[in-house]
Amino acid sequence: MEIIGSVLRFAGRLPRGYGKIGDDVAIVPVAGKKLVLKVDMLVESTDVPRGMTFRQAARKAVAMCVSDFAAKGVRPASYMVSLGVSRGMSSRDVDDLALGFRDASREWGVRLVGGDTNEADELVVDCTMVGFGDRVVGRGGARRGDVVVTTGPFGFPPAGLEILIKGAKTTGIFRRAAVKSVLSPTPDLRVGLALAGFWSSSMDSSDGLARSLHTLARASGVGMDIHTLPTAEGVVAFAKENGLSARRLVLEGGEEYLLVGTMKPSVLARAKRAAARSGGRIVEIGRVTGRSGEITLLSRKRKEPIEDAGWVHLR
Amino acid sequence: MEIIGSVLRFAGRLPRGYGKIGDDVAIVPVAGKKLVLKVDMLVESTDVPRGMTFRQAARKAVAMCVSDFAAKGVRPASYMVSLGVSRGMSSRDVDDLALGFRDASREWGVRLVGGDTNEADELVVDCTMVGFGDRVVGRGGARRGDVVVTTGPFGFPPAGLEILIKGAKTTGIFRRAAVKSVLSPTPDLRVGLALAGFWSSSMDSSDGLARSLHTLARASGVGMDIHTLPTAEGVVAFAKENGLSARRLVLEGGEEYLLVGTMKPSVLARAKRAAARSGGRIVEIGRVTGRSGEITLLSRKRKEPIEDAGWVHLR
Repeated sequence: MEIIGSVLRFAGRLPRGYGKIGDDVAIVPVAGKKLVLKVDMLVESTDVPRGMTFRQAARKAVAMCVSDFAAKGVRPASYMVSLGVSRGMSSRDVDDLALGFRDASREWGVRLVGGDTNEADELVVDCTMVGFGDRVVGRGGARRGDVVVTTGPFGFPPAGLEILIKGAKTTGIFRRAAVKSVLSPTPDLRVGLALAGFWSSSMDSSDGLARSLHTLARASGVGMDIHTLPTAEGVVAFAKENGLSARRLVLEGGEEYLLVGTMKPSVLARAKRAAARSGGRIVEIGRVTGRSGEITLLSRKRKEPIEDAGWVHLR
Repeated sequence: MEIIGSVLRFAGRLPRGYGKIGDDVAIVPVAGKKLVLKVDMLVESTDVPRGMTFRQAARKAVAMCVSDFAAKGVRPASYMVSLGVSRGMSSRDVDDLALGFRDASREWGVRLVGGDTNEADELVVDCTMVGFGDRVVGRGGARRGDVVVTTGPFGFPPAGLEILIKGAKTTGIFRRAAVKSVLSPTPDLRVGLALAGFWSSSMDSSDGLARSLHTLARASGVGMDIHTLPTAEGVVAFAKENGLSARRLVLEGGEEYLLVGTMKPSVLARAKRAAARSGGRIVEIGRVTGRSGEITLLSRKRKEPIEDAGWVHLR
């Protein structure tokens, strides 16, 4: 939702050294360093699909923040949680939430340092994460000639949501991978930190690949030619079986916790090795062009525009 | 709600230099300084009484955080807002929220640096505030013989809630003051900063006076003899007219944005002058005793216990 932009516009332009309002993370300059802040709110009715436990929901709330730190190349240090819980919540539910935060703390090496609880109509987990960095990768640094890369193939989470919510049919490994990607989203923190020095621009893909590409292009005043749709294995068959568009699953799904960005061709080989050393990989999917705002898919000798379409919430 | 305690217990004990989990604010040690973090969630159904505009609600969400910084004696620097908004929200409502954040930013000199928006069943404004300090006033430093002080008289906000929600009767100046204290809560930031060096313990009184006294006493392992109930002008008459207990309005109301704390008698005179210079005042209401956890009201030669009873949510 774009509402935050309207709200934040009233705050006016921030001084040099701060981040841009509406960017993935907030930046507060402190003694020569950058304090990086991120807040993200998980709301039961929009972010917790059928089949997700409270433990998984708590972990996901933290994952949503970790993902942005990964994209910005900054190691997160601590987090707080502000909980909205409904009156009927059992102590078992509370323990489940606690276990989810413990899972997240261990998985990404972040420390839970505080929080508060409030009564609400539904579960709300607002996670605030802080870290310090010397440099924060922005959205606006993509330049003509840069390569466009992602840290993995797309399509599992939207397929998983089709399975969990709409009962889409599939079996075996694909089903498990797709459902797991929804219930246990796992941001590439190690890969993100390893790639920090290579990006000219980057962001996470939690609103979907197409929206991320458009956001980076707009912020940088460039366009992109996409020559390869990074399609997760099995997505094409799954789409066919269920009468869905594989292209839309890859481009317009959401809840993808991969990184999307650009880098100079001269650093690509080193970036690939750095990603591999950190247990991940990067996939080259296109080139930055000078045609501001135009994202074009080059396929079978045709060119077609990629629309700025994105993730529609659960409800 | 005490749920956060259960959730945070799983996080274990924090290393030296961090705050205590469950305390008013979180503390992260950074390069010899303390990064102070506070998150507080305003939820429409529990924190926004009838008669409160979205502009006032947004300002209140920020006030809730400012109040804790005031109590801890740390100047807040920046804040983020995480919004949950319902689908039917109009652009007028959004503008109203934005105006409320602008009001708050100007009033307390804090900078809005980021945020995000999410869809939710009701309005949720989660405010995260950060600041840096050398010292953060805790809850556990009250010692036998200290004086117990507050930064003002109590009773306006609970009276205001009785008026707004239950239609309690009253008129004139009292009505305006009581209602205003609910719709435009105004934490004593200047007074809090002026008093930072004088407290042995302090906290804000957003859960009510009795609860604050008990919390400080428990954390410090002391008791308190309260010789004066700090009662706002008109509260006794208002209570009588509406068949309410003035004592309960003063002790067990909530949404009070005053400071409650303790200090050594030797600094009291200087603290009073410091408070006066900052446009506020402090009121001496009792003495710290050695009877751990016992809070006693000394009135008309009788002694009666003050229970650990507090603010009950709107719903």
